[in-house]
Amino acid sequence: MSHKALTPLSFLRRSAEVWSSKIAVIDGDRRWTYAKFGSEVQRVARALRASGVKPGDRVATLMPNVAEMLVAHFAVPLAGAVLVPVNTRLSSSEVNYILGHSGAKVLLADTRLSDLADRSVEGLDGIECVHVGSEPDERGAWAAFLDRAAGETKDLPWTVADEESPIAINYTSGTTGRPKGVVYTHRGAYLNSLGELIHSQHSPASVYLWTLPMFHCNGWCTTWAVTGIGGTHVCLPEVRGEAVWNAIDTYGVTHLNAAPTVVTTILNAAEATSLKTPVRVTTAGAPPSPTMIGHLDRMGFSLVHVYGLTETYGPYAVCEVQPEWEVLAPGERSRLLSRQGVGMIQADELRVVDETMHDVPNDGATVGEIVMRGNNVMAEYYLDPEGTREAFRGGWFHSGDLGVRHPDGYVQLRDRAKDIVISGGENISTIEVEQALVSHPAVMEAAVIGVPDEKWGERPRGYVLLKSDHTVTGPELVAHVQQQIARYKAPREVMVVKALPKTSTGKIQKFVLREEAWAGRGERIQG
Amino acid sequence: MSHKALTPLSFLRRSAEVWSSKIAVIDGDRRWTYAKFGSEVQRVARALRASGVKPGDRVATLMPNVAEMLVAHFAVPLAGAVLVPVNTRLSSSEVNYILGHSGAKVLLADTRLSDLADRSVEGLDGIECVHVGSEPDERGAWAAFLDRAAGETKDLPWTVADEESPIAINYTSGTTGRPKGVVYTHRGAYLNSLGELIHSQHSPASVYLWTLPMFHCNGWCTTWAVTGIGGTHVCLPEVRGEAVWNAIDTYGVTHLNAAPTVVTTILNAAEATSLKTPVRVTTAGAPPSPTMIGHLDRMGFSLVHVYGLTETYGPYAVCEVQPEWEVLAPGERSRLLSRQGVGMIQADELRVVDETMHDVPNDGATVGEIVMRGNNVMAEYYLDPEGTREAFRGGWFHSGDLGVRHPDGYVQLRDRAKDIVISGGENISTIEVEQALVSHPAVMEAAVIGVPDEKWGERPRGYVLLKSDHTVTGPELVAHVQQQIARYKAPREVMVVKALPKTSTGKIQKFVLREEAWAGRGERIQG
Repeated sequence: MSHKALTPLSFLRRSAEVWSSKIAVIDGDRRWTYAKFGSEVQRVARALRASGVKPGDRVATLMPNVAEMLVAHFAVPLAGAVLVPVNTRLSSSEVNYILGHSGAKVLLADTRLSDLADRSVEGLDGIECVHVGSEPDERGAWAAFLDRAAGETKDLPWTVADEESPIAINYTSGTTGRPKGVVYTHRGAYLNSLGELIHSQHSPASVYLWTLPMFHCNGWCTTWAVTGIGGTHVCLPEVRGEAVWNAIDTYGVTHLNAAPTVVTTILNAAEATSLKTPVRVTTAGAPPSPTMIGHLDRMGFSLVHVYGLTETYGPYAVCEVQPEWEVLAPGERSRLLSRQGVGMIQADELRVVDETMHDVPNDGATVGEIVMRGNNVMAEYYLDPEGTREAFRGGWFHSGDLGVRHPDGYVQLRDRAKDIVISGGENISTIEVEQALVSHPAVMEAAVIGVPDEKWGERPRGYVLLKSDHTVTGPELVAHVQQQIARYKAPREVMVVKALPKTSTGKIQKFVLREEAWAGRGERIQG
Repeated sequence: MSHKALTPLSFLRRSAEVWSSKIAVIDGDRRWTYAKFGSEVQRVARALRASGVKPGDRVATLMPNVAEMLVAHFAVPLAGAVLVPVNTRLSSSEVNYILGHSGAKVLLADTRLSDLADRSVEGLDGIECVHVGSEPDERGAWAAFLDRAAGETKDLPWTVADEESPIAINYTSGTTGRPKGVVYTHRGAYLNSLGELIHSQHSPASVYLWTLPMFHCNGWCTTWAVTGIGGTHVCLPEVRGEAVWNAIDTYGVTHLNAAPTVVTTILNAAEATSLKTPVRVTTAGAPPSPTMIGHLDRMGFSLVHVYGLTETYGPYAVCEVQPEWEVLAPGERSRLLSRQGVGMIQADELRVVDETMHDVPNDGATVGEIVMRGNNVMAEYYLDPEGTREAFRGGWFHSGDLGVRHPDGYVQLRDRAKDIVISGGENISTIEVEQALVSHPAVMEAAVIGVPDEKWGERPRGYVLLKSDHTVTGPELVAHVQQQIARYKAPREVMVVKALPKTSTGKIQKFVLREEAWAGRGERIQG
């Protein structure tokens, strides 16, 4: 008698009523209450319908972290359509591919990205590009779009017929080959949202700072989750240290999510200062180094370390903190915290398996592939049954990440399969070498790749960014690493650089470094 | 590819792995880790299977809040069976009815309740009564039961085939007529558990004190929820003020759930003292009075006020605290907090409707019936299709509770339909009169019923328990109430009594008071 389809739409239905006069969204000078947020979503959903968007159609976005991007996360599914949030840092040909592959009927593009949007829709039939602008002088196109349903006042229902139907398609960054369309369902997004509220310990008093792009795994579903708990979204179109510290101070930020490289930017900003009230930082995308964990601790941040992929709605695993860790020395505690951990409460198990799908021993040494399954894993790759079958072989989603399982059952990432360095037949985890590099007080960030070596096949090479006002030489860093970890793992050389190539979500693009290093050496041998 | 059936079983699967060495259960001198909790559950589930329990069979319990009762909450569904937790305060004929109606195949009965158990199974065929005892001298029968699967070591899977299949049947207390069997599903129990973790703000550091009986709505699903977050269960077979305060002190209790009368017992215990660290009290079962809310505040408790029924897995609604309430005077704040509020995050709407299923106006005055629906509402009454249809008429579950909706959208309980006093054609909320009575400093608890009146049909009468070392007369209390609320609502007389009749869950049994007052006056006219 009582089945009701799970959907994040119910979150805004509830918050627009329960928290009607509470601030839902802060974006520059704009302040929206939850009542206003709810009515904006209804208005945009009605305009989409009036524009010919039918249930099941795809609606893409090309927007930074602005209020309208939050609106799209609810308005598109409210109109019965599927959200395709496109990475704003892509080239027009990449955006064009995603729009074409997803068959998007509408592209909602921020006016700051109008040129990119216009170039991206070239040659595509049946797509309308709507320019979204909140500034008074930009409102023409957006206001005209909203006016399409001006006569309509009836609210669309905050429900979905089938909880297994798609709510979003998130395209992978695709460092090799074409990006894949990862299909999220209403049910999966709903359950992941509840899990994140629990693990990041959100409450209605949450003030959430948008340092993570909303186009990236729907901001790890936080677009929906923070709305569900009735917290306040603080939009941040650009992540600069000054803006982050300013927002923390001005709005009393309690939570933020960010990749470790973004955390590094925040911690090393000129404005950085010890916090008056704790801010919970949920981090993922790369393992945080013990050095960073210690730094966060001293500044008054509390860390939640999660792990996942686009295919797992963002976070799937969390490094749960055991009570007995409290009494450990900071270094030892940080080492344990830098591991990827265990499945979250709403997820299934986090397994590390060999090629025959058997679990590797809990010895912290045997490397296997990390696999996941259940409600926190995508439904499929869009229009790619073969890729889907391949990814789910044996009934589990294959992450392509290599890891070990420790005696306490915690999983630790060793490397992406393609990032591991194979030197004289030994596997070297570039993550381990990077963490040894950033433990040097002068180093802000590090990346390690394998480079050709006549004798060993490959040897690790390091690239480091230094903190301002610090100096150190490459050979000094090589010596430092040799003191931290096994000598054979130490890089032959470490280059001090001015910048590291990064994705829009702050991941270091090792393939760019590798392409330079291997140029003219033919195909790199895969391990 | 990724659908997985929702079930609370996954909570213990996870916690037995993730929190393997953390204390899961404290019961007297016993301390179980989560690894031990998980293995005990597997052992009992295997013994149930070895005893002939088949998927879908019912297994009843007659147990106070002991470790084995927690075990039963997982072992019975792990064996594929359905848990029927029976209220330990019932008479043998009442227990006999429930065992017969549910068709239970096994009764797990604590040795302290052996006599009741033995009498209760008399005349029933096909039920085995297993005596459960943890004390060394009582272990014979229990140890022999566990030995039935001694050869088996293979773990049963922590999964269920269909998330809509039943996990438990909880019988209503049935103050009139036969108790009804309320069917909970795996899906409903799972979602309600996540919702309670979020609203009561649990974390793995939770130390949860079992002041609420586990047999009552499965302890509002907290049996499952606290296990899911990896908190520590502190069992308390009997709720006395001394034992509660002792446990708070000894184990660092962070959370407890209790009906307001139990909260009154705790607050007025000789051992009561201001808390050093806050304890979150989640209360339901009757509206907490503003007086109690103020008292909790001053002692350092933080209140979560929820509302629900057996038919809604326990809590369905929560009185969310709006930020602007913080600055209100304590009395005004308490008045707002004593309302039943809004649907929880995992629930659907909380509506107040008239007889044609239209919402009453948000005027805080028009009384209607409170209705609910969705995943947080029972599947059905067991073997009672007609009762189920009647309860769900119009597609919503009819609570039988009368309430109003305030301009801010919050619902306030006025009375059970049968508790309301109709005097001279005016409805008088007994809750309102009771709250006026307990606002007198000498009064600990109050109950108000309607008694026959020649002129008005009915008039309210009050019954009060005084705090120790306090005195006040009935007429003084009548005068006190007349100063608080409309004169026509004030009771004609207030009787100072030594005890009030209560259910095992601490609800005052007004029907007992009414039966005495109406004795020899024929049928009471229903409003």
